[in-house]
Amino acid sequence: MSGIVVQNIERAAPEVIDGLAACGVATVHEAQGRIGLLAAYMRPIYSGARVAGSAVTISAPPGDNWMVHVAIEQLKDGDILLLAPTSPCEDGYFGDLLATSAQARGCKGLIIDAGVRDVRDLKEMDFPVWSKRVFAQGTIKASLGSVNVDVICAGALIRAGDVIVADDDGVCVVRRADAASVLEKALAREAAEEGKRRRLAAGELGLDIYRMREKLAAMGLVYE
Amino acid sequence: MSGIVVQNIERAAPEVIDGLAACGVATVHEAQGRIGLLAAYMRPIYSGARVAGSAVTISAPPGDNWMVHVAIEQLKDGDILLLAPTSPCEDGYFGDLLATSAQARGCKGLIIDAGVRDVRDLKEMDFPVWSKRVFAQGTIKASLGSVNVDVICAGALIRAGDVIVADDDGVCVVRRADAASVLEKALAREAAEEGKRRRLAAGELGLDIYRMREKLAAMGLVYE
Amino acid sequence: MSGIVVQNIERAAPEVIDGLAACGVATVHEAQGRIGLLAAYMRPIYSGARVAGSAVTISAPPGDNWMVHVAIEQLKDGDILLLAPTSPCEDGYFGDLLATSAQARGCKGLIIDAGVRDVRDLKEMDFPVWSKRVFAQGTIKASLGSVNVDVICAGALIRAGDVIVADDDGVCVVRRADAASVLEKALAREAAEEGKRRRLAAGELGLDIYRMREKLAAMGLVYE
Amino acid sequence: MSGIVVQNIERAAPEVIDGLAACGVATVHEAQGRIGLLAAYMRPIYSGARVAGSAVTISAPPGDNWMVHVAIEQLKDGDILLLAPTSPCEDGYFGDLLATSAQARGCKGLIIDAGVRDVRDLKEMDFPVWSKRVFAQGTIKASLGSVNVDVICAGALIRAGDVIVADDDGVCVVRRADAASVLEKALAREAAEEGKRRRLAAGELGLDIYRMREKLAAMGLVYE
Amino acid sequence: MSGIVVQNIERAAPEVIDGLAACGVATVHEAQGRIGLLAAYMRPIYSGARVAGSAVTISAPPGDNWMVHVAIEQLKDGDILLLAPTSPCEDGYFGDLLATSAQARGCKGLIIDAGVRDVRDLKEMDFPVWSKRVFAQGTIKASLGSVNVDVICAGALIRAGDVIVADDDGVCVVRRADAASVLEKALAREAAEEGKRRRLAAGELGLDIYRMREKLAAMGLVYE
Amino acid sequence: MSGIVVQNIERAAPEVIDGLAACGVATVHEAQGRIGLLAAYMRPIYSGARVAGSAVTISAPPGDNWMVHVAIEQLKDGDILLLAPTSPCEDGYFGDLLATSAQARGCKGLIIDAGVRDVRDLKEMDFPVWSKRVFAQGTIKASLGSVNVDVICAGALIRAGDVIVADDDGVCVVRRADAASVLEKALAREAAEEGKRRRLAAGELGLDIYRMREKLAAMGLVYE
Repeated sequence: MSGIVVQNIERAAPEVIDGLAACGVATVHEAQGRIGLLAAYMRPIYSGARVAGSAVTISAPPGDNWMVHVAIEQLKDGDILLLAPTSPCEDGYFGDLLATSAQARGCKGLIIDAGVRDVRDLKEMDFPVWSKRVFAQGTIKASLGSVNVDVICAGALIRAGDVIVADDDGVCVVRRADAASVLEKALAREAAEEGKRRRLAAGELGLDIYRMREKLAAMGLVYE
Repeated sequence: MSGIVVQNIERAAPEVIDGLAACGVATVHEAQGRIGLLAAYMRPIYSGARVAGSAVTISAPPGDNWMVHVAIEQLKDGDILLLAPTSPCEDGYFGDLLATSAQARGCKGLIIDAGVRDVRDLKEMDFPVWSKRVFAQGTIKASLGSVNVDVICAGALIRAGDVIVADDDGVCVVRRADAASVLEKALAREAAEEGKRRRLAAGELGLDIYRMREKLAAMGLVYE
Repeated sequence: MSGIVVQNIERAAPEVIDGLAACGVATVHEAQGRIGLLAAYMRPIYSGARVAGSAVTISAPPGDNWMVHVAIEQLKDGDILLLAPTSPCEDGYFGDLLATSAQARGCKGLIIDAGVRDVRDLKEMDFPVWSKRVFAQGTIKASLGSVNVDVICAGALIRAGDVIVADDDGVCVVRRADAASVLEKALAREAAEEGKRRRLAAGELGLDIYRMREKLAAMGLVYE
Repeated sequence: MSGIVVQNIERAAPEVIDGLAACGVATVHEAQGRIGLLAAYMRPIYSGARVAGSAVTISAPPGDNWMVHVAIEQLKDGDILLLAPTSPCEDGYFGDLLATSAQARGCKGLIIDAGVRDVRDLKEMDFPVWSKRVFAQGTIKASLGSVNVDVICAGALIRAGDVIVADDDGVCVVRRADAASVLEKALAREAAEEGKRRRLAAGELGLDIYRMREKLAAMGLVYE
Repeated sequence: MSGIVVQNIERAAPEVIDGLAACGVATVHEAQGRIGLLAAYMRPIYSGARVAGSAVTISAPPGDNWMVHVAIEQLKDGDILLLAPTSPCEDGYFGDLLATSAQARGCKGLIIDAGVRDVRDLKEMDFPVWSKRVFAQGTIKASLGSVNVDVICAGALIRAGDVIVADDDGVCVVRRADAASVLEKALAREAAEEGKRRRLAAGELGLDIYRMREKLAAMGLVYE
Repeated sequence: MSGIVVQNIERAAPEVIDGLAACGVATVHEAQGRIGLLAAYMRPIYSGARVAGSAVTISAPPGDNWMVHVAIEQLKDGDILLLAPTSPCEDGYFGDLLATSAQARGCKGLIIDAGVRDVRDLKEMDFPVWSKRVFAQGTIKASLGSVNVDVICAGALIRAGDVIVADDDGVCVVRRADAASVLEKALAREAAEEGKRRRLAAGELGLDIYRMREKLAAMGLVYE
């Protein structure tokens, strides 16, 4: 079932993608009903990046990064590469040369359930990566994988063209077809939070703002 | 045994707490006889913070952050929130809204044996957190826990009002009643180290400063 | 077999060592045939450092840092301390005082398959450390170990005088006798990469630069 | 998106399921192209069990086992319960009472990406479980999840009615629609292996049986 | 604060201890309000053992088992040794000789948040151990620790004389003063479960026995 | 540096090897000065096996088991296969067919710092394996490795022909040249332990047998 490159994938609208990036991972995750997070071990190689893009997915054999070259040809401006190995692997599939190539094609970043290297160069290039590991271990180019097929990456199902949102909190996936409605909910959530933030900053308590006292008392909370 | 909020806790003197913060985790840990460290997996979400404060403790069900709201009401200026789940959990109990509320009540930071989110916002707010994980996973508000009861957090017993010291080296707890004497010992240790630091910086060897050569030879150390 | 200090070790030429530092871990690892990496859990305590030096090795009992003092006397300008415990340990063997002493003797950094502390001070001193853990837990001075004997550190065999290269990607060891030839290959690799980087940055694809298309087709890659 | 129970799921033919059980995990995994394995951390609570059945899937909140009761009603003879928490959790969702109930409905076993308890009783009942953890930690019944929806369990996508094969090697999933053809390939593989096993047992070498010597020599293997 | 041996500790009544052993870890944990479990990584070295006894606690330096000898003198018939290292350690503190000595003093088993060795011999002797690791790594006898002081073992606070219950599900601690009342609740729980077990075994559903259907419907559970 | 098969390796005398097997891992480890243990994560796939043999070493690429076939030809009666991957890998390199072949050549078992599968069959064949993981994940045969070269396996340096001792406590390596003297020391240790065991079993205390009381008192141990 490997050895397939799906060439024409659908993508969400750029303004929706940009809107999701601005909302960030935590808000998007909440807005779509607390689903879509990748495992907590997926960490950014440097802090401060916040991106969203359409997933170009790579299913790769362990220790073999050949398919990354194949995937880069499929990139369109604003896409995000996402790689899942077919068995657990920490090798460094990706470094500064591949980042140079991907960035030249408009790629905004990489999500990889494996290792990455040349992280100092990647930071200088402003090419963010969320990975399981930083590891210089080299890979080979011997076996086929697939591009733009469904993959399980860090415990989440990703389909080519899904919107990936990533920031310092981790990585979240939004189904392409849901992107616009999730953005709408995320923006509503942000608006609602803004008022609460001001009240909380002024010293009001969540206990009062959210009217929790009665319910807590009813459940038996005792103040000593 | 949950569902209890202890309201009036005793705290150490502010100048003692500030003194312990200035000494830092490693020195305080040594000064009190090499005890009190929380597990090494408790890491700061950004580097450079160094704080101390009185613990307002939270015992919370897994994936349920309701008690954080209850605890925030108990905060006094200079306190530190400390949360331990009742079974292992990595969910993101705490984010920027709760931090806004806690900071408004004078809270200096959070120690949490679970997950935290909105870490970019927390850094911008200068609200430091030491956590087991960064994870955007949301939590619910359905079950009671307790506030200001004894908890085991990251392998250490914490009592409400204990002094928590945290910096880039991790987190250390000092019993409230011991805080003044531990500070005294920590300051003495710092003074003693200062002289050694100068001699070491000048190229003298610890082997000579600490008169180790004879003992090493007696134990059989052989130079080849 | 412990209790030995080997005093006169051979070192690689300084210009070779400096050359390897400039190439960095990933390039050096590739240049010598994809060997020599220490385990991926060895991480720098702060980002941005890139060093190389001759290994002064320490085999130390768990939780006992006495041999570090012994090793510091053996340091020459440009060396790197490398410590491996004789059984798994996360304690903080090394802090700012030892760093002051080591730095005064010309030491460029520390590689330790255990814990380190005082990391804020170490960063201010510009003394880089790659470690398994940051942990303030103190150690004792009760048992002998050895200095400049062969050790296994984070899964790699290190001999005293081997060249250690370390940067944000991790740590790599180069046998002393191989250092010059590895540097030669690393430089050749860098030169070759430079041309490719320019072509990739201009939008050319690796598929074309490396002539991969025919081979991929022959192996059965299908474009849908 | 939670709070749904899908009642009528399709299942593979019983004789196909039984055939897959007899082949075992490793053979089934190979026969379907080396896909479908759950993560290696899924281990049996006792050795020697080998089962296959149709998955009745449960998506459950962390630390909340209410949906297991809902799922048991959906069981048909020969089914296997499979539970995935919505965020990482090690609590003991399942024990002897639930096993008694599930077994009474014909359930052959449980796959759970979380904890299980009462393992001595489960062994006596001959009710096999493959889990992430053995942990006595109790759970609550407060929030809804779903039954017979798609879940990601230990890194694999499972659809209700998929065939689950489990033995001492771990757990593998076979899509319901592929079950018959996978069984056919698995049986063919077993037949082919039988002849090889006899030759290998007689001392013939794989190097000769699989005619590897020429290829290895061509690739440069050197005998010293 | 180390170097202390508390000699006269109070113990729970033998019949209470035996009653708790018969109930087992999961039931005792539930009966006392879902508290008292040690971390899930504490596993038995062989399956099938179920014991309870009064804790004789050991606080030991990492890699130093001297205090085990001191603790053995403090054992009374039916006690359980419980060792917590002062910093994380996996060394094999305990083997067949120490087990012979402990067993001769009436000790029923060992709980150790570190390593154990000679596990084949221990099984033959019927001396059960729950440990973090099996590891042959030897220890030394150089530093003092304490006996019968409070320790944190695998995340739980243990006081000398507390009742330890251990079986295939893990390890649970019951405060000495609570032992009798916890036993009472545990027996009540067992009696209540017996009736439910029979009904479940006969095919009745938990949904009906516990009258869950209305509540689930009210919360919005939908059957499709 | 891969692609090498060393054909003629030296081995220790069979009676020495058998003697070491009878002593077991813990005793051999102590007898040679507490060195030589492989990491604690190396666990037997079934309990009760105790073997020793000469190491035929395999350095294999991640996820590629081709070299196992090459190594099997190099086996002599009583040897033990030992595989180390060149980067971390959990795939199942070895199953019942390879075990059949190895056993036919006189192989006593396998030590593998990766995964193994068909564990039920291996147990039935009485072919013991110590591995990092049980995992059914299949491997390929595409790249060269080496046989009978030095490898680092689970943190220990292994040379072809070294004696491997393995039992329920884990795995230990003894240098071939040291095997006879280590056996002598191990037997002496066993003889010395036998007398102590009888005294301890009779209720004498280690405190008295080893005359520890004075030293403990001198160090300041206080009985309360």
